[in-house]
Amino acid sequence: MSKLPDIKTQFPEWYQEVIYQAELAEQSPVRGCIVIRPYGTAIWESIKNIMDKKIKDTGHENAIFPLLIPESFFKKEAEHVEGFAPELAIVTHAGGKELAEPLVIRPTSETMVHHMFAKWIKSWRDLPLKINQWANVMRWEMRPRAFLRTSEFFWQEGHTAHATQEEALEEALLMLEQYRDLAENYLAIPVFTGRKSEGEKFPGANKTYTFEAFMPDGKALQMGTSHMLSQNFAKAFEMQFQDKEGKLSYPWLTSWGSTTRLVGAVIMSHGDEKGLIIPPQIAPHQAVIIPIYRNEEERETVLKAAHTLKDSLKDKVRIHIDADDTKKPGNKFFHWEMRGVPLRIEIGPRDLTNNQCIIANRLTGEKETISLDVFAQELPKKLTAFQKQLFDAAKKRLDAMVDKKETLQDIIKHADNGGVSHTGFCEQSECEKSLKQHTLSIRCLLDTKTVNLCFGCKNQSTTDCLIARSY
Amino acid sequence: MSKLPDIKTQFPEWYQEVIYQAELAEQSPVRGCIVIRPYGTAIWESIKNIMDKKIKDTGHENAIFPLLIPESFFKKEAEHVEGFAPELAIVTHAGGKELAEPLVIRPTSETMVHHMFAKWIKSWRDLPLKINQWANVMRWEMRPRAFLRTSEFFWQEGHTAHATQEEALEEALLMLEQYRDLAENYLAIPVFTGRKSEGEKFPGANKTYTFEAFMPDGKALQMGTSHMLSQNFAKAFEMQFQDKEGKLSYPWLTSWGSTTRLVGAVIMSHGDEKGLIIPPQIAPHQAVIIPIYRNEEERETVLKAAHTLKDSLKDKVRIHIDADDTKKPGNKFFHWEMRGVPLRIEIGPRDLTNNQCIIANRLTGEKETISLDVFAQELPKKLTAFQKQLFDAAKKRLDAMVDKKETLQDIIKHADNGGVSHTGFCEQSECEKSLKQHTLSIRCLLDTKTVNLCFGCKNQSTTDCLIARSY
Repeated sequence: MSKLPDIKTQFPEWYQEVIYQAELAEQSPVRGCIVIRPYGTAIWESIKNIMDKKIKDTGHENAIFPLLIPESFFKKEAEHVEGFAPELAIVTHAGGKELAEPLVIRPTSETMVHHMFAKWIKSWRDLPLKINQWANVMRWEMRPRAFLRTSEFFWQEGHTAHATQEEALEEALLMLEQYRDLAENYLAIPVFTGRKSEGEKFPGANKTYTFEAFMPDGKALQMGTSHMLSQNFAKAFEMQFQDKEGKLSYPWLTSWGSTTRLVGAVIMSHGDEKGLIIPPQIAPHQAVIIPIYRNEEERETVLKAAHTLKDSLKDKVRIHIDADDTKKPGNKFFHWEMRGVPLRIEIGPRDLTNNQCIIANRLTGEKETISLDVFAQELPKKLTAFQKQLFDAAKKRLDAMVDKKETLQDIIKHADNGGVSHTGFCEQSECEKSLKQHTLSIRCLLDTKTVNLCFGCKNQSTTDCLIARSY
Repeated sequence: MSKLPDIKTQFPEWYQEVIYQAELAEQSPVRGCIVIRPYGTAIWESIKNIMDKKIKDTGHENAIFPLLIPESFFKKEAEHVEGFAPELAIVTHAGGKELAEPLVIRPTSETMVHHMFAKWIKSWRDLPLKINQWANVMRWEMRPRAFLRTSEFFWQEGHTAHATQEEALEEALLMLEQYRDLAENYLAIPVFTGRKSEGEKFPGANKTYTFEAFMPDGKALQMGTSHMLSQNFAKAFEMQFQDKEGKLSYPWLTSWGSTTRLVGAVIMSHGDEKGLIIPPQIAPHQAVIIPIYRNEEERETVLKAAHTLKDSLKDKVRIHIDADDTKKPGNKFFHWEMRGVPLRIEIGPRDLTNNQCIIANRLTGEKETISLDVFAQELPKKLTAFQKQLFDAAKKRLDAMVDKKETLQDIIKHADNGGVSHTGFCEQSECEKSLKQHTLSIRCLLDTKTVNLCFGCKNQSTTDCLIARSY
């Protein structure tokens, strides 16, 4: 392993290299698809478990829909097919024969889910219907980047149907709030939540809500979205229910998704020149014990003590003991620093004599000696503090990045310096389109209205928005 | 909902109908692919969580490999491509263009995994490498049956590499034992474990081990397999490591998998004329409380008591309260019987006055009145007893089904009566092939040798085996 590229001046290279050196993922022989290695998979599983619990706690059930979707399904909703057609991977042959109708590998499952919803929803008693699916999806990618943009990616996609528009809107906002909580309180990434502009919304949605993070280089990362769909889907798939008055109505639909991109967000948001820093809430190993010994006798004593420490926090803290005899302690320090384990615990024969161990903090680099008597008490507190420190640092960086700007000229200049502009917007497409040539986009519309004029046309603004470059 | 087809005389129809009525799964618009509905998904998630823990407890780590595999990879191992070619689904177009090389949707991932293993394994220090993946796979199916045989199915596939053949064999047998434990102690399905004959082994394996269950109709269900692979894979993918002496060697590989077919096994193995019976160990709801009330005041009192009962076993027993006001208790009884919830708890105002509730057993149909004071103590015991009863019943049925037979004539006759034959086998392919025209096959070779002569050629037998029809 060699030194990482400079994180300040070579951020994209740093990103690629830290993924490789920390063994999170690797390019596969299929263009645009990655192999997620065990450490990367363990981080994704942590995130998945947290999100799965949130989904179930808010009254949704998991189901499994087919990978393949008939091509004709996509053509039923006009905006939807237009949005996804260029990215589709298509199965033309199966079982040794050419298929009568080509099948598409799902880029998202609205069409298949709505086809089934139409069978399941007959009466108001069948509503709300609240389903989630954990799945792989495929959107052919010309410029892949591990976790951020890959042809195959992994996600949850929620799909719900409601009797009224108000209820569907409530659902879309409820899940947006779950995402915000996931980002801020588990991934330690502060986000802005808001509505997407017309130019950025999901193909087929009435309203798209987003949670956006901003990376150290000033670029926005769309972390996930929550949509209130137009009724076109319900109409296209002939999904109707009898309401309490016996009248046939179209249900109101939502969909919402978050992906393996969240792993990319964690890497970029918290990493430093030594490698990853993983928030304790999602860290596969929250602490690693490095036993220090010079001979077999010491080894046995120290490992025994290490196991006692680990067992004292069983089911409370995820502690890993690195007992690999082929590596020296210094190499282990380097190994686990690269992988971003929050706390490192060093323990040797002399520490044992003094009834103490050393705890090193991956974020601050500080080392502290603590008594073994208070170890089980102190470690969970240190992890809670670590999680907060990590969020606070990211929040401080974000606050310094966002600034009010009134003209396109200033917005461009601010973006060139890695900044995010808070500005006014008239919600007309001409003004939004003018951003494209500067590789800028409206990341989200905000609830506030503090800027009077639109950045583009200088007419009255109808809403504040955030403008930045993006991943 | 209508009555189920007769389970004794119309077993295949019963199977299909119970899946539909219990809302486990439904046909999708893509031939051979099913939609697994929330109740079916919850059962699969239970099984998955148990197996995932076993896989991790035995020192394996999860990883994620791509869905698509270059067609050329399959051609590297001759037996492997021959085995899978007729079942492949092939992507020829992606991103709006025809692909230079077609991509195959994985029917299994050996080729992709071994390609990556070849990059990761350089030295004896990198061994053993023990990886598992939870994934969807695709094998185009002409005669699909929900859970048992579908074009897309869901599974875990383990892939490991070892320095020695002995270690690889140990691994294959270790995972076979994990599977046996899963089947018998969680799914309550007694199985035979053993080696597959030459005619039945995995394309590319040296040895395939299987765990086989036998359904009430006498047909065998292969529940999963564990393979020690031939070194052809390591050679085809140029996977070599430097051993402790500095010599280059090929590692020894295993793979092992179990699928959503296990859900089908549970349905068939335990179901009865009223519907499903789900073993408590994997039941999404281990008990359901049906509150009985006639007015709003009673409703409130009874529901409060129901929640007290549920909370008294929080994190210990998965209890569901069916508080749906649009259904009468009788309909709820029917609903949860169909879904096979092990215990039903009835509680009404009079029960509350008497400080008691009624517990109905889905397997035996018995109803029992118990005091609320011992409820929290008794319920877990009843679930343990239920699990054992279920296994014992299945074991008794299996024991009655297996009989020693010496001639092909007797084996056929026994199979016609829904029986499984324990017989002798010379391990020559001619004798194995003679079974095919009778739709029989060797399900597994046994460790014993109690029958002297081969069922086919009447020469000396080399091993006992089990012969039956199969799914």
